[in-house]
Amino acid sequence: MADPWQECMDYAVALARKAGEIIREALKEEISIMTKSSPVDLVTETDQKVENFIISLIKEKYPSHSFIGEESVAAGEGSILTDNPTWIIDPIDGTTNFVHRFPFVAVSIGFVVNKKIEFGIVYSCVEDKMYTARKGKGAFCNGQKLQVSGQEDITKSLLVTELGSNRDPETIKIILSNMERLLSIPIHGIRAVGTAAVNMCLVATGGADAYYEMGIHCWDMAGAGIIITEAGGVLLDVSGGPFDLMSRRIIAASSRAIGERIAKALQIIPLKRDDATN
Amino acid sequence: MADPWQECMDYAVALARKAGEIIREALKEEISIMTKSSPVDLVTETDQKVENFIISLIKEKYPSHSFIGEESVAAGEGSILTDNPTWIIDPIDGTTNFVHRFPFVAVSIGFVVNKKIEFGIVYSCVEDKMYTARKGKGAFCNGQKLQVSGQEDITKSLLVTELGSNRDPETIKIILSNMERLLSIPIHGIRAVGTAAVNMCLVATGGADAYYEMGIHCWDMAGAGIIITEAGGVLLDVSGGPFDLMSRRIIAASSRAIGERIAKALQIIPLKRDDATN
Repeated sequence: MADPWQECMDYAVALARKAGEIIREALKEEISIMTKSSPVDLVTETDQKVENFIISLIKEKYPSHSFIGEESVAAGEGSILTDNPTWIIDPIDGTTNFVHRFPFVAVSIGFVVNKKIEFGIVYSCVEDKMYTARKGKGAFCNGQKLQVSGQEDITKSLLVTELGSNRDPETIKIILSNMERLLSIPIHGIRAVGTAAVNMCLVATGGADAYYEMGIHCWDMAGAGIIITEAGGVLLDVSGGPFDLMSRRIIAASSRAIGERIAKALQIIPLKRDDATN
Repeated sequence: MADPWQECMDYAVALARKAGEIIREALKEEISIMTKSSPVDLVTETDQKVENFIISLIKEKYPSHSFIGEESVAAGEGSILTDNPTWIIDPIDGTTNFVHRFPFVAVSIGFVVNKKIEFGIVYSCVEDKMYTARKGKGAFCNGQKLQVSGQEDITKSLLVTELGSNRDPETIKIILSNMERLLSIPIHGIRAVGTAAVNMCLVATGGADAYYEMGIHCWDMAGAGIIITEAGGVLLDVSGGPFDLMSRRIIAASSRAIGERIAKALQIIPLKRDDATN
Protein backbone atom coordinates (compact mmCIF):
# COMPACT_ATOMS: atom_id res chain seq x y z
CA MET A 1 0.00 0.00 0.00
CA ALA A 2 1.29 3.47 -0.81
CA ASP A 3 2.17 5.70 2.16
CA PRO A 4 -1.01 7.75 2.71
CA TRP A 5 0.86 10.74 4.15
CA GLN A 6 3.90 10.97 1.87
CA GLU A 7 2.17 13.51 -0.35
CA CYS A 8 1.41 15.69 2.70
CA MET A 9 5.06 15.44 3.76
CA ASP A 10 6.40 16.44 0.35
CA TYR A 11 4.03 19.40 0.37
CA ALA A 12 5.18 20.37 3.91
CA VAL A 13 8.83 20.33 2.86
CA ALA A 14 8.08 22.62 -0.08
CA LEU A 15 6.06 24.99 2.11
CA ALA A 16 8.75 25.08 4.82
CA ARG A 17 11.34 25.97 2.20
CA LYS A 18 9.19 28.81 0.84
CA ALA A 19 8.45 30.01 4.38
CA GLY A 20 12.19 30.05 5.03
CA GLU A 21 12.71 32.24 1.98
CA ILE A 22 10.13 34.71 3.34
CA ILE A 23 11.96 34.74 6.69
CA ARG A 24 15.38 35.24 5.08
CA GLU A 25 13.99 38.18 3.07
CA ALA A 26 12.44 39.66 6.23
CA LEU A 27 15.83 39.49 7.97
CA LYS A 28 17.11 42.02 5.42
CA GLU A 29 14.41 44.57 6.34
CA GLU A 30 13.67 46.47 9.53
CA ILE A 31 11.82 44.22 12.03
CA SER A 32 9.03 45.72 14.12
CA ILE A 33 8.48 43.91 17.40
CA MET A 34 5.40 43.29 19.53
CA THR A 35 5.13 41.37 22.81
CA LYS A 36 2.81 38.57 23.96
CA SER A 37 2.77 37.03 27.46
CA SER A 38 5.68 39.08 28.86
CA PRO A 39 7.97 41.96 27.83
CA VAL A 40 10.46 39.37 26.54
CA ASP A 41 7.91 37.07 24.79
CA LEU A 42 8.31 38.61 21.33
CA VAL A 43 6.34 38.34 18.11
CA THR A 44 6.64 40.06 14.74
CA GLU A 45 4.50 40.59 11.68
CA THR A 46 6.63 37.96 9.96
CA ASP A 47 5.54 35.25 12.45
CA GLN A 48 1.91 35.98 11.59
CA LYS A 49 2.53 36.36 7.86
CA VAL A 50 4.44 33.07 7.61
CA GLU A 51 1.84 31.16 9.62
CA ASN A 52 -0.98 32.50 7.45
CA PHE A 53 1.00 31.61 4.35
CA ILE A 54 1.54 28.01 5.44
CA ILE A 55 -1.94 27.35 6.85
CA SER A 56 -3.84 28.92 3.95
CA LEU A 57 -1.96 26.82 1.39
CA ILE A 58 -2.49 23.59 3.36
CA LYS A 59 -6.20 24.37 3.88
CA GLU A 60 -6.61 24.83 0.15
CA LYS A 61 -5.23 21.36 -0.50
CA TYR A 62 -6.51 19.51 2.61
CA PRO A 63 -9.71 21.30 3.69
CA SER A 64 -10.74 18.57 6.15
CA HIS A 65 -7.51 18.70 8.18
CA SER A 66 -7.09 20.45 11.52
CA PHE A 67 -4.49 23.03 12.56
CA ILE A 68 -2.70 24.16 15.70
CA GLY A 69 -0.48 27.15 14.95
CA GLU A 70 1.43 29.27 17.43
CA GLU A 71 0.03 32.57 16.19
CA SER A 72 -3.52 31.27 15.64
CA VAL A 73 -3.55 30.11 19.27
CA ALA A 74 -2.15 33.48 20.38
CA ALA A 75 -5.07 35.07 18.45
CA GLY A 76 -7.59 32.98 20.43
CA GLU A 77 -8.01 29.73 18.47
CA GLY A 78 -8.09 26.48 20.44
CA SER A 79 -5.30 23.94 20.73
CA ILE A 80 -7.16 20.69 21.47
CA LEU A 81 -5.57 17.74 19.72
CA THR A 82 -8.16 15.35 18.19
CA ASP A 83 -7.71 12.16 16.13
CA ASN A 84 -8.20 14.15 12.91
CA PRO A 85 -5.08 14.70 10.78
CA THR A 86 -3.60 17.81 12.41
CA TRP A 87 -0.84 20.14 11.28
CA ILE A 88 1.05 21.66 14.22
CA ILE A 89 2.98 24.72 13.08
CA ASP A 90 5.52 27.13 14.47
CA PRO A 91 6.16 29.65 11.70
CA ILE A 92 9.30 31.03 13.41
CA ASP A 93 10.81 28.93 16.17
CA GLY A 94 13.32 31.32 17.71
CA THR A 95 11.49 34.64 17.33
CA THR A 96 13.92 36.35 19.72
CA ASN A 97 16.78 35.09 17.54
CA PHE A 98 14.92 36.37 14.47
CA VAL A 99 14.50 39.82 16.04
CA HIS A 100 18.22 39.96 16.83
CA ARG A 101 19.35 38.21 13.65
CA PHE A 102 21.00 35.56 15.81
CA PRO A 103 21.47 32.93 13.12
CA PHE A 104 19.17 30.09 14.33
CA VAL A 105 15.60 30.51 13.14
CA ALA A 106 13.44 27.57 12.14
CA VAL A 107 10.13 26.80 10.49
CA SER A 108 8.61 23.80 12.31
CA ILE A 109 5.82 21.60 10.96
CA GLY A 110 4.58 18.44 12.68
CA PHE A 111 1.81 16.26 11.27
CA VAL A 112 -0.19 14.22 13.78
CA VAL A 113 -2.85 11.55 13.10
CA ASN A 114 -4.68 9.71 15.91
CA LYS A 115 -2.46 11.72 18.24
CA LYS A 116 0.73 10.14 16.83
CA ILE A 117 3.32 12.19 14.95
CA GLU A 118 3.51 10.87 11.37
CA PHE A 119 6.19 13.22 10.05
CA GLY A 120 8.12 16.29 11.08
CA ILE A 121 9.96 19.09 9.28
CA VAL A 122 12.36 21.61 10.80
CA TYR A 123 13.86 24.07 8.35
CA SER A 124 16.71 26.04 9.96
CA CYS A 125 16.52 28.68 7.29
CA VAL A 126 19.57 30.91 7.95
CA GLU A 127 21.81 27.83 7.91
CA ASP A 128 19.73 26.37 5.04
CA LYS A 129 19.42 23.03 6.84
CA MET A 130 16.26 21.02 6.09
CA TYR A 131 15.65 18.39 8.77
CA THR A 132 12.92 15.82 8.01
CA ALA A 133 11.62 12.56 9.42
CA ARG A 134 8.80 10.20 8.37
CA LYS A 135 7.64 7.57 10.87
CA GLY A 136 9.56 4.34 10.31
CA LYS A 137 11.73 5.80 7.58
CA GLY A 138 14.53 7.58 9.42
CA ALA A 139 15.56 11.19 9.94
CA PHE A 140 17.59 13.29 7.51
CA CYS A 141 19.30 16.66 7.21
CA ASN A 142 19.69 17.90 3.64
CA GLY A 143 19.36 14.29 2.53
CA GLN A 144 21.99 12.92 4.94
CA LYS A 145 20.77 10.27 7.42
CA LEU A 146 20.88 11.31 11.08
CA GLN A 147 21.90 9.21 14.06
CA VAL A 148 21.97 10.27 17.72
CA SER A 149 25.23 9.85 19.65
CA GLY A 150 23.92 6.90 21.67
CA GLN A 151 25.86 8.22 24.68
CA GLU A 152 24.66 6.54 27.90
CA ASP A 153 27.09 8.11 30.40
CA ILE A 154 25.75 11.41 31.72
CA THR A 155 29.25 12.46 32.90
CA LYS A 156 30.39 12.43 29.27
CA SER A 157 27.37 14.31 27.94
CA LEU A 158 26.78 17.69 26.33
CA LEU A 159 23.25 19.01 26.90
CA VAL A 160 21.15 21.69 25.22
CA THR A 161 18.39 23.66 26.91
CA GLU A 162 17.15 27.25 27.18
CA LEU A 163 16.69 29.89 29.85
CA GLY A 164 13.26 30.61 28.33
CA SER A 165 11.15 33.75 28.14
CA ASN A 166 9.40 33.46 31.51
CA ARG A 167 10.73 36.17 33.85
CA ASP A 168 8.81 35.06 36.94
CA PRO A 169 11.51 34.96 39.67
CA GLU A 170 10.47 31.51 40.95
CA THR A 171 10.61 30.02 37.44
CA ILE A 172 14.05 31.51 36.78
CA LYS A 173 15.28 30.05 40.08
CA ILE A 174 14.11 26.52 39.16
CA ILE A 175 15.61 26.74 35.65
CA LEU A 176 19.00 27.80 37.05
CA SER A 177 18.89 25.33 39.93
CA ASN A 178 18.24 22.52 37.43
CA MET A 179 21.33 23.63 35.50
CA GLU A 180 23.32 23.66 38.74
CA ARG A 181 22.28 20.07 39.59
CA LEU A 182 23.21 18.84 36.11
CA LEU A 183 26.55 20.71 35.94
CA SER A 184 27.48 19.28 39.36
CA ILE A 185 27.04 15.63 38.28
CA PRO A 186 29.34 16.72 36.41
CA ILE A 187 28.44 16.87 32.73
CA HIS A 188 30.66 18.19 29.92
CA GLY A 189 28.53 21.29 29.36
CA ILE A 190 25.30 23.01 28.40
CA ARG A 191 24.61 24.89 25.16
CA ALA A 192 21.64 27.06 24.09
CA VAL A 193 21.12 28.24 20.53
CA GLY A 194 17.70 29.81 21.18
CA THR A 195 15.25 27.50 19.42
CA ALA A 196 13.76 24.29 20.79
CA ALA A 197 13.46 22.79 17.32
CA VAL A 198 17.10 23.40 16.35
CA ASN A 199 18.31 22.26 19.80
CA MET A 200 16.44 18.99 19.25
CA CYS A 201 17.83 18.62 15.73
CA LEU A 202 21.34 19.05 17.17
CA VAL A 203 20.62 16.05 19.42
CA ALA A 204 19.39 14.13 16.35
CA THR A 205 22.71 14.81 14.56
CA GLY A 206 24.68 13.48 17.54
CA GLY A 207 26.17 16.95 18.20
CA ALA A 208 24.56 17.04 21.65
CA ASP A 209 23.43 14.14 23.85
CA ALA A 210 20.11 15.48 25.16
CA TYR A 211 17.75 18.44 25.23
CA TYR A 212 15.30 19.22 28.01
CA GLU A 213 12.95 22.11 28.59
CA MET A 214 9.76 23.08 30.43
CA GLY A 215 7.43 25.86 29.30
CA ILE A 216 7.59 25.26 25.57
CA HIS A 217 4.55 24.31 23.46
CA CYS A 218 3.39 21.51 21.17
CA TRP A 219 4.41 23.57 18.10
CA ASP A 220 8.00 23.72 19.40
CA MET A 221 8.16 19.91 19.73
CA ALA A 222 5.91 18.29 17.08
CA GLY A 223 8.25 18.78 14.13
CA ALA A 224 11.51 17.89 15.89
CA GLY A 225 10.06 15.16 18.15
CA ILE A 226 9.89 12.56 15.41
CA ILE A 227 13.28 13.70 14.05
CA ILE A 228 14.72 12.63 17.43
CA THR A 229 13.00 9.22 17.53
CA GLU A 230 13.73 8.45 13.87
CA ALA A 231 17.40 9.29 14.53
CA GLY A 232 17.40 6.62 17.25
CA GLY A 233 16.73 8.87 20.24
CA VAL A 234 14.02 8.77 22.87
CA LEU A 235 11.39 11.26 24.07
CA LEU A 236 10.48 11.31 27.74
CA ASP A 237 8.47 13.49 30.04
CA VAL A 238 10.59 15.50 32.51
CA SER A 239 9.26 13.16 35.22
CA GLY A 240 10.87 10.23 33.38
CA GLY A 241 7.45 8.92 32.28
CA PRO A 242 6.05 8.83 28.74
CA PHE A 243 6.33 11.96 26.59
CA ASP A 244 3.09 13.94 26.18
CA LEU A 245 2.99 16.37 23.26
CA MET A 246 0.50 18.72 24.98
CA SER A 247 2.29 18.82 28.36
CA ARG A 248 4.67 21.70 27.52
CA ARG A 249 7.71 19.71 28.71
CA ILE A 250 10.20 17.33 27.20
CA ILE A 251 13.43 15.40 27.48
CA ALA A 252 14.78 14.40 24.07
CA ALA A 253 17.78 12.15 24.59
CA SER A 254 20.25 10.04 22.68
CA SER A 255 19.53 7.13 25.08
CA ARG A 256 16.97 6.18 27.71
CA ALA A 257 19.76 6.09 30.33
CA ILE A 258 20.72 9.73 29.76
CA GLY A 259 17.06 10.81 29.60
CA GLU A 260 16.19 9.13 32.89
CA ARG A 261 19.29 10.54 34.63
CA ILE A 262 18.25 14.05 33.57
CA ALA A 263 14.68 13.43 34.77
CA LYS A 264 16.09 12.42 38.17
CA ALA A 265 17.90 15.78 38.43
CA LEU A 266 15.05 18.05 37.37
CA GLN A 267 12.79 20.01 39.67
CA ILE A 268 9.47 20.45 37.87
CA ILE A 269 7.96 23.83 36.95
CA PRO A 270 4.14 23.90 37.27
CA LEU A 271 2.61 24.67 33.86
CA LYS A 272 -0.84 24.93 32.27
CA ARG A 273 -1.11 22.32 29.50
CA ASP A 274 -1.54 23.36 25.87
CA ASP A 275 -4.94 21.63 25.80
CA ALA A 276 -6.22 23.05 29.09
CA THR A 277 -9.76 24.30 28.52
CA ASN A 278 -9.66 27.16 30.99
CA MET B 1 54.42 53.68 4.61
CA ALA B 2 53.35 50.12 3.98
CA ASP B 3 51.55 48.33 6.81
CA PRO B 4 54.36 46.47 8.63
CA TRP B 5 52.05 43.66 9.85
CA GLN B 6 49.88 43.03 6.78
CA GLU B 7 52.16 40.23 5.61
CA CYS B 8 51.88 38.54 9.02
CA MET B 9 48.10 38.85 8.86
CA ASP B 10 47.88 37.32 5.37
CA TYR B 11 50.03 34.47 6.58
CA ALA B 12 47.82 33.99 9.68
CA VAL B 13 44.67 33.79 7.55
CA ALA B 14 46.25 31.12 5.34
CA LEU B 15 47.44 29.15 8.39
CA ALA B 16 44.04 29.38 10.11
CA ARG B 17 42.37 28.06 6.98
CA LYS B 18 44.77 25.11 6.77
CA ALA B 19 44.35 24.45 10.51
CA GLY B 20 40.58 24.42 9.96
CA GLU B 21 41.01 21.79 7.26
CA ILE B 22 42.97 19.60 9.69
CA ILE B 23 40.19 20.02 12.28
CA ARG B 24 37.43 19.21 9.78
CA GLU B 25 39.30 16.05 8.74
CA ALA B 26 39.78 15.07 12.41
CA LEU B 27 36.00 15.41 12.97
CA LYS B 28 35.51 12.52 10.55
CA GLU B 29 37.73 10.19 12.62
CA GLU B 30 37.41 8.80 16.11
CA ILE B 31 38.45 11.41 18.70
CA SER B 32 40.44 10.30 21.76
CA ILE B 33 39.98 12.57 24.73
CA MET B 34 42.26 13.57 27.60
CA THR B 35 41.54 15.96 30.49
CA LYS B 36 43.46 18.97 31.89
CA SER B 37 42.46 21.00 34.97
CA SER B 38 39.20 19.09 35.67
CA PRO B 39 37.29 16.02 34.40
CA VAL B 40 35.37 18.34 32.05
CA ASP B 41 38.37 20.43 30.86
CA LEU B 42 39.04 18.40 27.72
CA VAL B 43 41.92 18.26 25.26
CA THR B 44 42.64 16.04 22.26
CA GLU B 45 45.61 15.14 20.12
CA THR B 46 44.18 17.44 17.47
CA ASP B 47 44.50 20.50 19.77
CA GLN B 48 48.20 19.74 20.17
CA LYS B 49 48.77 18.82 16.53
CA VAL B 50 47.10 21.99 15.23
CA GLU B 51 48.99 24.25 17.65
CA ASN B 52 52.32 22.66 16.68
CA PHE B 53 51.42 23.05 13.01
CA ILE B 54 50.64 26.76 13.37
CA ILE B 55 53.53 27.68 15.66
CA SER B 56 56.20 25.76 13.74
CA LEU B 57 55.25 27.43 10.45
CA ILE B 58 55.21 30.90 12.00
CA LYS B 59 58.57 30.32 13.76
CA GLU B 60 60.10 29.33 10.44
CA LYS B 61 59.08 32.64 8.89
CA TYR B 62 59.36 34.95 11.93
CA PRO B 63 62.04 33.41 14.20
CA SER B 64 62.31 36.50 16.44
CA HIS B 65 58.60 36.59 17.36
CA SER B 66 57.13 35.32 20.64
CA PHE B 67 54.27 32.85 21.18
CA ILE B 68 51.57 32.15 23.73
CA GLY B 69 49.62 29.03 22.78
CA GLU B 70 47.00 27.23 24.85
CA GLU B 71 48.64 23.83 24.57
CA SER B 72 52.21 25.12 24.95
CA VAL B 73 51.16 26.79 28.21
CA ALA B 74 49.40 23.58 29.31
CA ALA B 75 52.72 21.82 28.62
CA GLY B 76 54.55 24.22 30.95
CA GLU B 77 55.65 27.17 28.79
CA GLY B 78 55.17 30.67 30.19
CA SER B 79 52.51 33.16 29.23
CA ILE B 80 54.11 36.50 30.04
CA LEU B 81 53.22 39.16 27.48
CA THR B 82 56.18 41.34 26.48
CA ASP B 83 56.48 44.19 23.94
CA ASN B 84 57.91 41.78 21.36
CA PRO B 85 55.58 40.84 18.46
CA THR B 86 53.60 37.97 19.99
CA TRP B 87 51.27 35.43 18.42
CA ILE B 88 48.52 34.31 20.81
CA ILE B 89 46.99 31.07 19.60
CA ASP B 90 44.08 28.83 20.48
CA PRO B 91 44.27 25.91 18.03
CA ILE B 92 40.72 24.72 18.87
CA ASP B 93 38.47 27.16 20.70
CA GLY B 94 35.55 24.96 21.72
CA THR B 95 37.34 21.67 22.40
CA THR B 96 34.25 20.26 24.15
CA ASN B 97 32.23 21.11 21.03
CA PHE B 98 34.92 19.46 18.90
CA VAL B 99 34.76 16.28 21.01
CA HIS B 100 30.96 16.17 20.64
CA ARG B 101 30.92 17.41 17.03
CA PHE B 102 28.73 20.31 18.18
CA PRO B 103 29.19 22.51 15.13
CA PHE B 104 31.07 25.55 16.56
CA VAL B 105 34.82 25.04 16.61
CA ALA B 106 37.25 27.86 15.91
CA VAL B 107 40.92 28.48 15.27
CA SER B 108 41.88 31.73 17.01
CA ILE B 109 44.99 33.78 16.29
CA GLY B 110 45.71 37.18 17.82
CA PHE B 111 48.83 39.21 17.05
CA VAL B 112 50.02 41.64 19.70
CA VAL B 113 52.81 44.23 19.49
CA ASN B 114 53.72 46.49 22.43
CA LYS B 115 50.83 44.79 24.26
CA LYS B 116 48.27 46.10 21.70
CA ILE B 117 46.35 43.73 19.43
CA GLU B 118 47.32 44.51 15.83
CA PHE B 119 45.12 41.94 14.11
CA GLY B 120 42.87 38.99 14.91
CA ILE B 121 41.65 35.92 13.06
CA VAL B 122 38.84 33.58 14.11
CA TYR B 123 38.11 30.78 11.69
CA SER B 124 34.87 28.98 12.62
CA CYS B 125 35.80 25.98 10.56
CA VAL B 126 32.66 23.81 10.54
CA GLU B 127 30.60 26.80 9.38
CA ASP B 128 33.50 27.87 7.11
CA LYS B 129 33.32 31.45 8.43
CA MET B 130 36.59 33.39 8.39
CA TYR B 131 36.41 36.40 10.73
CA THR B 132 39.29 38.89 10.48
CA ALA B 133 40.17 42.36 11.74
CA ARG B 134 43.22 44.60 11.27
CA LYS B 135 43.60 47.60 13.60
CA GLY B 136 42.03 50.68 12.02
CA LYS B 137 40.79 48.78 8.98
CA GLY B 138 37.51 47.22 10.11
CA ALA B 139 36.28 43.70 10.81
CA PHE B 140 35.06 41.23 8.21
CA CYS B 141 33.47 37.79 7.88
CA ASN B 142 34.17 36.04 4.58
CA GLY B 143 34.88 39.47 3.12
CA GLN B 144 31.68 41.10 4.37
CA LYS B 145 32.12 44.11 6.69
CA LEU B 146 30.88 43.61 10.25
CA GLN B 147 29.03 46.10 12.44
CA VAL B 148 27.81 45.58 16.01
CA SER B 149 24.11 46.20 16.75
CA GLY B 150 24.80 49.45 18.61
CA GLN B 151 22.00 48.53 21.05
CA GLU B 152 22.17 50.68 24.20
CA ASP B 153 19.07 49.43 26.03
CA ILE B 154 19.85 46.37 28.15
CA THR B 155 16.15 45.42 28.34
CA LYS B 156 16.19 44.90 24.57
CA SER B 157 19.43 42.93 24.53
CA LEU B 158 20.41 39.37 23.69
CA LEU B 159 23.55 38.23 25.50
CA VAL B 160 26.01 35.38 24.96
CA THR B 161 28.07 33.74 27.68
CA GLU B 162 29.07 30.25 28.84
CA LEU B 163 28.64 28.04 31.89
CA GLY B 164 32.34 27.19 31.60
CA SER B 165 34.34 24.12 32.55
CA ASN B 166 34.96 24.93 36.21
CA ARG B 167 32.91 22.55 38.38
CA ASP B 168 33.81 24.14 41.73
CA PRO B 169 30.40 24.56 43.46
CA GLU B 170 31.07 28.18 44.47
CA THR B 171 32.06 29.15 40.92
CA ILE B 172 28.95 27.50 39.44
CA LYS B 173 26.81 29.40 41.95
CA ILE B 174 28.28 32.77 40.94
CA ILE B 175 27.94 32.01 37.21
CA LEU B 176 24.25 31.09 37.63
CA SER B 177 23.52 33.95 40.02
CA ASN B 178 24.98 36.39 37.47
CA MET B 179 22.61 34.94 34.86
CA GLU B 180 19.71 35.35 37.29
CA ARG B 181 20.54 39.02 37.88
CA LEU B 182 20.75 39.72 34.16
CA LEU B 183 17.58 37.78 33.23
CA SER B 184 15.68 39.66 35.95
CA ILE B 185 16.51 43.12 34.55
CA PRO B 186 14.86 41.72 32.22
CA ILE B 187 16.86 41.06 29.09
CA HIS B 188 15.61 39.29 25.95
CA GLY B 189 17.71 36.21 26.52
CA ILE B 190 21.06 34.44 26.85
CA ARG B 191 22.66 32.12 24.30
CA ALA B 192 25.75 29.90 24.53
CA VAL B 193 27.34 28.22 21.51
CA GLY B 194 30.34 26.85 23.41
CA THR B 195 33.29 28.93 22.16
CA ALA B 196 34.34 32.34 23.45
CA ALA B 197 35.74 33.33 20.07
CA VAL B 198 32.56 32.50 18.11
CA ASN B 199 30.37 34.09 20.81
CA MET B 200 32.41 37.30 20.41
CA CYS B 201 32.18 37.13 16.62
CA LEU B 202 28.37 36.82 16.95
CA VAL B 203 28.45 40.13 18.86
CA ALA B 204 30.60 41.62 16.07
CA THR B 205 27.98 40.61 13.47
CA GLY B 206 25.20 42.32 15.47
CA GLY B 207 23.51 38.94 16.14
CA ALA B 208 23.97 39.39 19.89
CA ASP B 209 24.45 42.58 21.89
CA ALA B 210 27.15 41.54 24.32
CA TYR B 211 29.31 38.68 25.56
CA TYR B 212 30.76 38.35 29.03
CA GLU B 213 32.75 35.64 30.73
CA MET B 214 35.18 35.02 33.57
CA GLY B 215 37.69 32.17 33.63
CA ILE B 216 38.74 32.22 29.98
CA HIS B 217 42.28 32.92 28.80
CA CYS B 218 44.15 35.40 26.61
CA TRP B 219 44.09 32.89 23.71
CA ASP B 220 40.27 32.85 23.83
CA MET B 221 40.10 36.66 23.55
CA ALA B 222 43.10 37.93 21.52
CA GLY B 223 41.77 36.98 18.08
CA ALA B 224 38.14 38.02 18.61
CA GLY B 225 38.88 41.08 20.79
CA ILE B 226 39.97 43.25 17.88
CA ILE B 227 37.14 41.86 15.73
CA ILE B 228 34.74 43.36 18.32
CA THR B 229 36.42 46.78 18.44
CA GLU B 230 36.88 47.01 14.67
CA ALA B 231 33.15 46.21 14.27
CA GLY B 232 32.37 49.24 16.45
CA GLY B 233 32.03 47.45 19.79
CA VAL B 234 33.81 47.99 23.09
CA LEU B 235 35.88 45.77 25.38
CA LEU B 236 35.60 46.25 29.12
CA ASP B 237 36.75 44.49 32.22
CA VAL B 238 33.93 42.79 34.17
CA SER B 239 34.41 45.54 36.80
CA GLY B 240 33.49 48.13 34.15
CA GLY B 241 37.11 49.34 33.98
CA PRO B 242 39.56 48.96 31.07
CA PHE B 243 39.91 45.55 29.43
CA ASP B 244 43.06 43.62 30.32
CA LEU B 245 44.00 40.78 27.94
CA MET B 246 45.79 38.79 30.67
CA SER B 247 43.04 39.13 33.32
CA ARG B 248 40.97 36.08 32.21
CA ARG B 249 37.77 38.15 32.11
CA ILE B 250 35.91 40.24 29.57
CA ILE B 251 32.79 42.10 28.56
CA ALA B 252 32.59 42.57 24.78
CA ALA B 253 29.62 44.79 24.03
CA SER B 254 27.91 46.57 21.18
CA SER B 255 27.93 49.80 23.22
CA ARG B 256 29.57 51.17 26.36
CA ALA B 257 26.10 51.58 27.95
CA ILE B 258 25.27 47.86 27.64
CA GLY B 259 28.77 46.86 28.76
CA GLU B 260 28.63 49.03 31.87
CA ARG B 261 25.13 47.81 32.76
CA ILE B 262 26.36 44.20 32.61
CA ALA B 263 29.39 45.08 34.74
CA LYS B 264 27.02 46.53 37.35
CA ALA B 265 25.15 43.20 37.52
CA LEU B 266 28.13 40.87 37.75
CA GLN B 267 29.53 39.32 40.89
CA ILE B 268 33.22 38.71 40.28
CA ILE B 269 34.87 35.26 40.37
CA PRO B 270 38.41 35.33 41.86
CA LEU B 271 40.92 34.13 39.24
CA LYS B 272 44.66 33.73 38.86
CA ARG B 273 45.85 35.91 35.96
CA ASP B 274 47.34 34.37 32.81
CA ASP B 275 50.65 36.16 33.54
CA ALA B 276 50.80 35.27 37.23
CA THR B 277 54.31 34.04 38.00
CA ASN B 278 53.37 31.59 40.72
